Amino acid sequence: MQRYFVESSNIINGYVYINGEDYHHITKVMRMKIDDEIIVCDNQDSYLCKIIEINAECVTSQIFKKLDEKKELPVNVTIAQGVVRREKAEEVIDKITQLGANKYLMVNMERCNVKLNDEKLNKKVDRMNKIAKEASEQSHRTRKLVVENPIDFKNLLKLKNEYDLCLYAYEVIDKDESLKNILKQKKYQNILILVGPEGGISLKEVEMLNSVGFIPISLGPRILRTEVAPTYVMAAISYELEI
Amino acid sequence: MQRYFVESSNIINGYVYINGEDYHHITKVMRMKIDDEIIVCDNQDSYLCKIIEINAECVTSQIFKKLDEKKELPVNVTIAQGVVRREKAEEVIDKITQLGANKYLMVNMERCNVKLNDEKLNKKVDRMNKIAKEASEQSHRTRKLVVENPIDFKNLLKLKNEYDLCLYAYEVIDKDESLKNILKQKKYQNILILVGPEGGISLKEVEMLNSVGFIPISLGPRILRTEVAPTYVMAAISYELEI
Repeated sequence: MQRYFVESSNIINGYVYINGEDYHHITKVMRMKIDDEIIVCDNQDSYLCKIIEINAECVTSQIFKKLDEKKELPVNVTIAQGVVRREKAEEVIDKITQLGANKYLMVNMERCNVKLNDEKLNKKVDRMNKIAKEASEQSHRTRKLVVENPIDFKNLLKLKNEYDLCLYAYEVIDKDESLKNILKQKKYQNILILVGPEGGISLKEVEMLNSVGFIPISLGPRILRTEVAPTYVMAAISYELEI
Repeated sequence: MQRYFVESSNIINGYVYINGEDYHHITKVMRMKIDDEIIVCDNQDSYLCKIIEINAECVTSQIFKKLDEKKELPVNVTIAQGVVRREKAEEVIDKITQLGANKYLMVNMERCNVKLNDEKLNKKVDRMNKIAKEASEQSHRTRKLVVENPIDFKNLLKLKNEYDLCLYAYEVIDKDESLKNILKQKKYQNILILVGPEGGISLKEVEMLNSVGFIPISLGPRILRTEVAPTYVMAAISYELEI
């Protein structure tokens, strides 16, 4: 069944008011009529609804059941990645949303060879959030992945305190903390995982990550491109905690 | 170090003869010279080599060390997938090669809405194998993933005897055989995993798969697009068996 994310302010007294692009999707793309059913999510709960009115710019639907769906990972996962080209970032966002991530954070790092243009930045981030919304709907999630504006590396380090586990994927590891051993402990609720940009993480950055308590993890013996590593991590988390 | 796959017939008495596109890559793209080092793989072993001669159409290099690399999964994995659009297939091939798969098999299934054009088929499969070769080199593998010509669904069923474990990803599972339980047994050497096309696997196909002994597995509570499912499976196998 078709699923739409709405702001919780659009749900009033058991009625859901849908406008904008979702209005267009419901009426023009899906060509839905009165009495058709949809699922509406307010980023926390999901509801089975029936369309009761369609006017020139709003679809009104009535909630008739709160759903008890278990679609979300049992942990909150933020994927942080050195800034990559827009198309690659969009691909990563699409994939990790399907795999249950909660946040995507672009990080300006030493070896990034891409600069996000400030002028068009808001437009790009808006578009990324739209991709995340569509992938969240398509994969039947009850929460949307959120894409935030890029941050500098030093501000990433400060985020250590907001998470109870901060990891970074690194191919040159002396003493390998195994991702499996970490996940098996099942004692972490908020996890941040950093993946380097195409040029990798610099030695200086590695030292700084270590100094604030980020833990290096290996993603296997082969070299993964930066756009594959986040998918690997998310699949591993799902595999360990969900199936 | 730059890595090249060659036919074993190109390795003679400790010398490796490289021509064609790799010749072009070594001389024009990498601009290598006499004494530069490369790694050469014959799809089984890998060797550290030194370039000793470059002429108009052949680079000759001398093997001076057989490498003891552990880059391959401890199991052979074939990913079979309902035929999808060429660009999607190429994306899947690139990803699963990095994650260690050995073969990619396109399967004509009931709900495939893509037909591979016979005229251009060979060209398309050649291109896919080229993508697999490049991804194998880039991810530092010692074996290449192989893409074969598409087969019909009934011929997929016949492959059951060639593998000691055949699975299919299916979202509607009554009795869920957990992928984790299966992989933890570590008693399978040749694994085939089928992922449906965009339209999914039909009920009739499910019955036929079950009747010959394919086992349905779940890939978590969210709906994954057909191009993400193979990556999930490969990451799960790597996570369980390699890290």
